[in-house]
Amino acid sequence: MTAPLAISMGDPAGIGPEIIAKAWSARHEASLPPFVAIGDVRALARVWDGPVRTVGGLEDVAGTFADALPVLQVEDAGDITPGQPDIEGARCALHALELAAGLVRSGAASALVTGPVSKAQLYGAGFTHPGQTEFVAERCGVAGENAVMMLAGPSLRVVPITTHVPLAAVSSLLTVDLIVAKTRATARGLVRNFGIEAPRLAFAGFNPHAGEGGAIGREEIQVIEPALRQLREEGIDARGPFAADTLFHARARREYDVALCAYHDQALVPLKTLHFDEGVNITLGLPIVRTSPDHGTAFGIAGRNEAHPGAMIAAIAMAQQASIFRAASLSC
Amino acid sequence: MTAPLAISMGDPAGIGPEIIAKAWSARHEASLPPFVAIGDVRALARVWDGPVRTVGGLEDVAGTFADALPVLQVEDAGDITPGQPDIEGARCALHALELAAGLVRSGAASALVTGPVSKAQLYGAGFTHPGQTEFVAERCGVAGENAVMMLAGPSLRVVPITTHVPLAAVSSLLTVDLIVAKTRATARGLVRNFGIEAPRLAFAGFNPHAGEGGAIGREEIQVIEPALRQLREEGIDARGPFAADTLFHARARREYDVALCAYHDQALVPLKTLHFDEGVNITLGLPIVRTSPDHGTAFGIAGRNEAHPGAMIAAIAMAQQASIFRAASLSC
Repeated sequence: MTAPLAISMGDPAGIGPEIIAKAWSARHEASLPPFVAIGDVRALARVWDGPVRTVGGLEDVAGTFADALPVLQVEDAGDITPGQPDIEGARCALHALELAAGLVRSGAASALVTGPVSKAQLYGAGFTHPGQTEFVAERCGVAGENAVMMLAGPSLRVVPITTHVPLAAVSSLLTVDLIVAKTRATARGLVRNFGIEAPRLAFAGFNPHAGEGGAIGREEIQVIEPALRQLREEGIDARGPFAADTLFHARARREYDVALCAYHDQALVPLKTLHFDEGVNITLGLPIVRTSPDHGTAFGIAGRNEAHPGAMIAAIAMAQQASIFRAASLSC
Repeated sequence: MTAPLAISMGDPAGIGPEIIAKAWSARHEASLPPFVAIGDVRALARVWDGPVRTVGGLEDVAGTFADALPVLQVEDAGDITPGQPDIEGARCALHALELAAGLVRSGAASALVTGPVSKAQLYGAGFTHPGQTEFVAERCGVAGENAVMMLAGPSLRVVPITTHVPLAAVSSLLTVDLIVAKTRATARGLVRNFGIEAPRLAFAGFNPHAGEGGAIGREEIQVIEPALRQLREEGIDARGPFAADTLFHARARREYDVALCAYHDQALVPLKTLHFDEGVNITLGLPIVRTSPDHGTAFGIAGRNEAHPGAMIAAIAMAQQASIFRAASLSC
């Protein structure tokens, strides 16, 4: 029997508990596989009156899932008020993440889906990683540059090569080695986790019109093109660099499997313009499958039954599919 | 009787002549007003076998338009081969632009629509402006920072505050004065040319997540927010800065009339992702109405009857509508 998916609940005062509960309610329509929510069961009770059952271990999830949302309880999160995060809640979120990641690493769970956390709160609780992605990568023994954040929606996948850094710093952070490392992990991830045999990778230029041959900036000539030449020599189908503004319309999107972008907004603007409520964050380059809904804790609407579960449902479905592809590729 | 629109043909070896001819063919379905094409009539003959009639002056356009595409001939462009631009063609494009702009400034034509030119060819012909926008602004006696390029599609309008400059230079080019000047011209243009009484202007942040309060870059704190405060004091409804990746999905777009962006791709990526074949470039801040299809000469497909006239048709319709709003606002 297939192991269940492990979903860390995220910050107990955010919308994580609500969207996990709504995803469980949609399990039939969305054909979702059995999963267990990991966190404080009381966070669910504050926002949902559907059936919840605390399980003692992952072996109880399959038998529970049809009738109730299975929850694996971590320690008490203290008083929980939706929309009002605190340090105790952040600690609870961190322990849930640690437990969920461990269960997937051990094979007891098939894939990891992480609920939204508040970085500011986590830092207050002593968390030293930039985000959950880096935390999970470290727990898996993978160096940061080899773990890749890919954002995916129904008609577009994007990888930002640099992420949460000032835009003015990107030019100096963008190196041939960084592009090559991120691209290798992306290409391998598309083969292993998405079953794409020969992935087509399209690169966005850094400057307007991809620099127009050096007339509007030289990052394409000095960094991106040398990296692409090296990747092509390794047999990776690396295309471009293309003018970013011509890369994301419907016809253009049919020509590649993933767009690699130099900076955060170059990737996230087209992804969220097209797929705001259904974007999934998947980490490539790890020995496990990890996905996450591509949105934050949304404290402003927590506890008001207004949260849209679309991205959580998509994250669960993608984790399931990626773990099936992965198992198939490992058994070859 | 209303004056006709003047359309400069653009580079005679590009797709300009073809899309003007196709727009004339679509005049009934698209409810287009009478217009005259200005350039070398032979450029049309190379790509189209529909009816063309050379007119002696703009007074002949209205009587001609129902039966044939009216053309005002400038000097001979030399040998014309679609897809193979040359200096003679660039000179012809430049004279067509000069004549068309002059006819609109004099009031003989109601609005200017410019066909696509090759900047590289124009520079070879001695053109010293960055592009047609700056040329038209200068002919109208308007300083560059007061002329604004706005790109518009059916569900989104965007203004890039900086345009064709290296991305790494934008941080130092972005000043309070520049943002204020561009925004004032944008706000006035939306009132005068679009009939929007109280335009809502949304600003994109420069850094990921709009800088997260200074944690990921300080351009928001040091430049954008002070500019927005000054604009609000002047009574302009300036909102933000918002995280760019949350600004362009369907629900977000309903909350503003134009998005002001710090750099080229921040504006052009969402616009072209959504509206690749129908984007219109309109210059605000001029004493005349000027629009243009938001694409280039497309030499690669010129002469092959593959060019999509959607953006040209949209540019003509927008020029017509803007000149009507403008006339109404001037007569108040």
